[in-house]
Amino acid sequence: MPPRSRRGAGMGARAASAWQRIPAVRASDVKLWCARRIPILEWAPRYSLKENLVPDTVSGLHLAVYQLTQGLMFAGMSSVHPVFGLYGSLIPSIVYAVFGMGRHVVTGTFALTSLISAGAVERLVPRINSSSAANYSPDFLGLSDFEFQRIGVAAAVTFLGGVIQVAMFVLQLDKLTFLMSQSVISSMTTGAATHGVNALVKHLLGLKMPYISGPLGMFYIYAYVFNNIQSVQLEALLLSVFGIILLLILKELNEKFKKIIKIILPVELIWMVAVSLACYLADMKNSYDLDVLGHIPRGIPAPRAPPMNILSDVVIEGFGLAIVGYAASIVLAHRSPKNIKYSVDDNQELLAHGLSNVISSFFYCIPNAAAMGRTSFLLSNGAKTQVASLVSCSVILLVIYIAGPLLYWLPMCVLASVIVVSLKGMLMQFCDLKKYWNTDKYDCVIWICTYVVTICFAANIGLLFGVLFNIAVAVARLARAKVLQLETFDKDNCNVMENTTCEQCQKVKIVSVGMPLFFLNAKKFHADLMKIHLKNSEGIQLHDEPSKGEQNILLTPMTNEAHNGNSGHSQGSFANDPLARAGVTLARPSCTVRDTLILDCSRLSFFDYTGLSTLVEIYTDFTNRGVTVLLVGCKASQIKAMHYSGLESEQNIFFNSVSTAVAAVHLYKCYTHKPSDDSVV
Amino acid sequence: MPPRSRRGAGMGARAASAWQRIPAVRASDVKLWCARRIPILEWAPRYSLKENLVPDTVSGLHLAVYQLTQGLMFAGMSSVHPVFGLYGSLIPSIVYAVFGMGRHVVTGTFALTSLISAGAVERLVPRINSSSAANYSPDFLGLSDFEFQRIGVAAAVTFLGGVIQVAMFVLQLDKLTFLMSQSVISSMTTGAATHGVNALVKHLLGLKMPYISGPLGMFYIYAYVFNNIQSVQLEALLLSVFGIILLLILKELNEKFKKIIKIILPVELIWMVAVSLACYLADMKNSYDLDVLGHIPRGIPAPRAPPMNILSDVVIEGFGLAIVGYAASIVLAHRSPKNIKYSVDDNQELLAHGLSNVISSFFYCIPNAAAMGRTSFLLSNGAKTQVASLVSCSVILLVIYIAGPLLYWLPMCVLASVIVVSLKGMLMQFCDLKKYWNTDKYDCVIWICTYVVTICFAANIGLLFGVLFNIAVAVARLARAKVLQLETFDKDNCNVMENTTCEQCQKVKIVSVGMPLFFLNAKKFHADLMKIHLKNSEGIQLHDEPSKGEQNILLTPMTNEAHNGNSGHSQGSFANDPLARAGVTLARPSCTVRDTLILDCSRLSFFDYTGLSTLVEIYTDFTNRGVTVLLVGCKASQIKAMHYSGLESEQNIFFNSVSTAVAAVHLYKCYTHKPSDDSVV
Repeated sequence: MPPRSRRGAGMGARAASAWQRIPAVRASDVKLWCARRIPILEWAPRYSLKENLVPDTVSGLHLAVYQLTQGLMFAGMSSVHPVFGLYGSLIPSIVYAVFGMGRHVVTGTFALTSLISAGAVERLVPRINSSSAANYSPDFLGLSDFEFQRIGVAAAVTFLGGVIQVAMFVLQLDKLTFLMSQSVISSMTTGAATHGVNALVKHLLGLKMPYISGPLGMFYIYAYVFNNIQSVQLEALLLSVFGIILLLILKELNEKFKKIIKIILPVELIWMVAVSLACYLADMKNSYDLDVLGHIPRGIPAPRAPPMNILSDVVIEGFGLAIVGYAASIVLAHRSPKNIKYSVDDNQELLAHGLSNVISSFFYCIPNAAAMGRTSFLLSNGAKTQVASLVSCSVILLVIYIAGPLLYWLPMCVLASVIVVSLKGMLMQFCDLKKYWNTDKYDCVIWICTYVVTICFAANIGLLFGVLFNIAVAVARLARAKVLQLETFDKDNCNVMENTTCEQCQKVKIVSVGMPLFFLNAKKFHADLMKIHLKNSEGIQLHDEPSKGEQNILLTPMTNEAHNGNSGHSQGSFANDPLARAGVTLARPSCTVRDTLILDCSRLSFFDYTGLSTLVEIYTDFTNRGVTVLLVGCKASQIKAMHYSGLESEQNIFFNSVSTAVAAVHLYKCYTHKPSDDSVV
Repeated sequence: MPPRSRRGAGMGARAASAWQRIPAVRASDVKLWCARRIPILEWAPRYSLKENLVPDTVSGLHLAVYQLTQGLMFAGMSSVHPVFGLYGSLIPSIVYAVFGMGRHVVTGTFALTSLISAGAVERLVPRINSSSAANYSPDFLGLSDFEFQRIGVAAAVTFLGGVIQVAMFVLQLDKLTFLMSQSVISSMTTGAATHGVNALVKHLLGLKMPYISGPLGMFYIYAYVFNNIQSVQLEALLLSVFGIILLLILKELNEKFKKIIKIILPVELIWMVAVSLACYLADMKNSYDLDVLGHIPRGIPAPRAPPMNILSDVVIEGFGLAIVGYAASIVLAHRSPKNIKYSVDDNQELLAHGLSNVISSFFYCIPNAAAMGRTSFLLSNGAKTQVASLVSCSVILLVIYIAGPLLYWLPMCVLASVIVVSLKGMLMQFCDLKKYWNTDKYDCVIWICTYVVTICFAANIGLLFGVLFNIAVAVARLARAKVLQLETFDKDNCNVMENTTCEQCQKVKIVSVGMPLFFLNAKKFHADLMKIHLKNSEGIQLHDEPSKGEQNILLTPMTNEAHNGNSGHSQGSFANDPLARAGVTLARPSCTVRDTLILDCSRLSFFDYTGLSTLVEIYTDFTNRGVTVLLVGCKASQIKAMHYSGLESEQNIFFNSVSTAVAAVHLYKCYTHKPSDDSVV
């Protein structure tokens, strides 16, 4: 920037310098920006083959099993053909590996986002006319137009959600992340996992069940199950229960003896292969009527844009996907500061997730997000970088092109039980409740309420409710929080005045304003201050928590008649006082130092009009009661604003530090707002 | 309460003692309760005839003119016959005088509530079938069934609003009053006054105009006026403009010379009587086609319950009336602390306003509320007690029974101009804007936004928006507010250790937590603390406002590799540090006193889980960086919760005061979290 633009002041010069800055973009800046926005450019060249390749490959192979199972299952949860779940496990992972910063974060199909897109699919598909669907259906072997209508809607949700996430990236809405507290996100994801389990119930029990959703959908699902309890397939139920118990035990044992056997067994894979084989050999599909995965076509159809004409119909689902998907991904950043040893830029994550969704929507993918399960899986399996997820992608690619038909005999109930086991981590967040209970009861209540709203309605509604409820609780607590603190009169201040007695010291009260003073706490501040004044100054023991009526009385300025009826100033102020009226005799000693209140505002980080006018009211109120009020550490803006709000003082009442204020009080002995009073004392 | 119930613990005993308390209600308690809930029992017997009767009567007579005009006009604004406005000025005032505590508060017809009920009337009346309306119409001379249908709807709104206010009284919702800050209420009432003026425009211009309301109704009104500008009655326009100017000038003069002439002229009354006479004598109604008030029947029909069958249709209006009416009445309490020398119990006010509405709804009244105009009118006219409004009521009663027909010739434009002048006070709140601007810019923005929403939509929507917007602004400011404060190392603390150098002192940093630590500011607190640490401890000048990327780096705990690659503890912590990576060489002096951070939590009024886990994170983070962290002034609950949140410390890190913590640091010289380190130094 040349010096002449610095010389110019105001908008014109600033605009000019802004224009001059544009051609100044250098190649190094572009390179830096690319490195920041496309992290793979930074980590890939520095990838240590020797150190990281082996652990990445091993954990990547494991991840593939995980990703495959989830893809197949969550596609079903999205009400689309399982093959699209395989694509949904492949494409987004690749995109995220390029744009994402989380080394252990893998995007892919996700229970929560699948449920969101399922809502759109079930709502819109019956409405779509076949002509528009024909446009979207590629010439792909073995799949009907109907299947392509369904994935078309899901892809539209994916696209719109991704676009909204990219827009959030551009608007830097990641800065609002602080509104989603840990308890809210933990509760919302637990509720979402509960939704996931609910959606799997029909597979676990082998029930043929219609699609049920909407408010209280969970209860309708279980009502349907209990009404049709006689239709439960015993074979499926036994396989599911046995599978879940077996997997839980095996995984627990594997975790325990990890150090001894030094490998992590792909228990899910072994179980699935075993049951599929048994199913094939015993022809269970026909003999027991067991629901199996069925035909999976080979390969990937040519990419195609999602149907844009239905975007306006999926706006709600799009927003739901964008926000819930993002919220689920921040859990990772929030939850594992001890396990993940690198920093993640929240905004870059928004871009990565947004692009994952946008790009994958061209490849017939269902909505995707980062999932806690996959991340903790990778962490426990010792993965080092994103290469693990790329290894997993190549395995999935192999399955898509070669091994797809082999999946035909995989029973749905086995798939469902594997997913339930994988949701264990999210469901175990119930244990967080104890932690919240022991830390902060309010957070515990927020957790429970958010969870109830989430399971009764949907994850996005639960998240919205949780954020608003959390703010409401915080507002209520702020309104009740202690604003002022009675400072101790330390030696340092007392040193200033040499010939003061202890009794004189006690007449000076130093109160510091510990919080921002605004409409939520201004009234309480006034009442508390008055309480301290009456309690300490007059020797009257008030109750710790005065009732509503009393507080109002305390707030009342003395009546006009009090001034008219009494000639003495300090006595007069209390003549018509509620306390005096109540028969309390006030023995006020003849004072050499007037009662003084020093308000330390140096910690007052901000104030609004209500807070400021309360300060002025306090000044007027106390001055009328014969108390000298001095203000310490006020900023210039505060002093100006106080004068503007009607502060009338003839002498200086603003001091820089408590000690100068105390010194001033004692130097002038009877520092008072009315100079004529000096002669009286 | 007998002692045995005290001995028992738990719910059972508490329930028993609660039951035992019920028969213990004594006559004196009942009396006290009555005096509290029916204030007239308290003030009436002590009423000083000598002192107060004259000013009360004089101001009461003036008030009658005010109340009459408003009643007639606001009835029109409510889309009902003017006579119901007279009832609406009479009945509620009497009820309020019995139950209300405000000595200068007069309930009655109110522009804002009239507009709310007009919405219901215009919406519902076309739908009501004549048979149900016939039930409600009493045999009252001169009024059609149609008029009774209209007042029936208005009375239903009045009834429901009153019931809601009483319910709010029972639930003690007055405690939520603090959410309505002064700027919001000022802005809402100004917006409502604007709505009032808009509704009067047709009378001021003598235009025949359909009822226009709904979102952006104001713009449709003025669009209609400009489209029909040729239909404006010049006579009406001239009378209105002349009337408004005349009244403004006369009132200003009267106010100026009040002390000299010692009476307050009823300028409105004189003007109205004069124009009515002229109108009668010149037969203006027929010669100029001037809109006049018309026939007002004499007397009051027998009381009748409002039509309960339409209550469900007016729920929104009922809530609007209850909340807006209450909000308008608190303005009085909030705005005039200097003028009103008595305390008002917000909850009792809710009861008084609720009963005013409920009871008056049986007497064909339109919704009512306290109005700022009437209160400031009474205050400026020197009224002392509620007797003034009772005097006004008897005048209105006279008008209803005797002088009603005389009002026939009163031109509507004159009535409208009197109302516009009476709304002046509320409209002049625009001047508050300057005050808010000078005090707090945010409040100014809140005022403007609330005003815009109010005039574009309605007063209740504006109020809701204002409250939520105000909270949102407060949340944003809290999130950005300074949480921590670097304490100065005062002599008092230094005295504890005798042989310490200044350099040693500087290695101990005392930071006090100035605000509640919760999800809104926890992350910022961590970042700020780290900034202070890096800035002061390492001698590196960071920018005042580090960019997003830097903050993220600052938040990053050091990597594992750092520990593995380096043997030295304190050096190792920084080896893979972002700062070190950036080429900054850290010259760490060999220390005799380890870097120590003392966190003073004595002002931490509350914390939530996020805040607490951030504290634990800070502890872990700083300890890993080789800084000893000591916590001062923590409450027992906080210490327990911190241990629960995973705080691991082998030595005591909690101290009661800063000085004991400092002493501990210097007594043990190298107070450290790892006792083995002691031998090294």
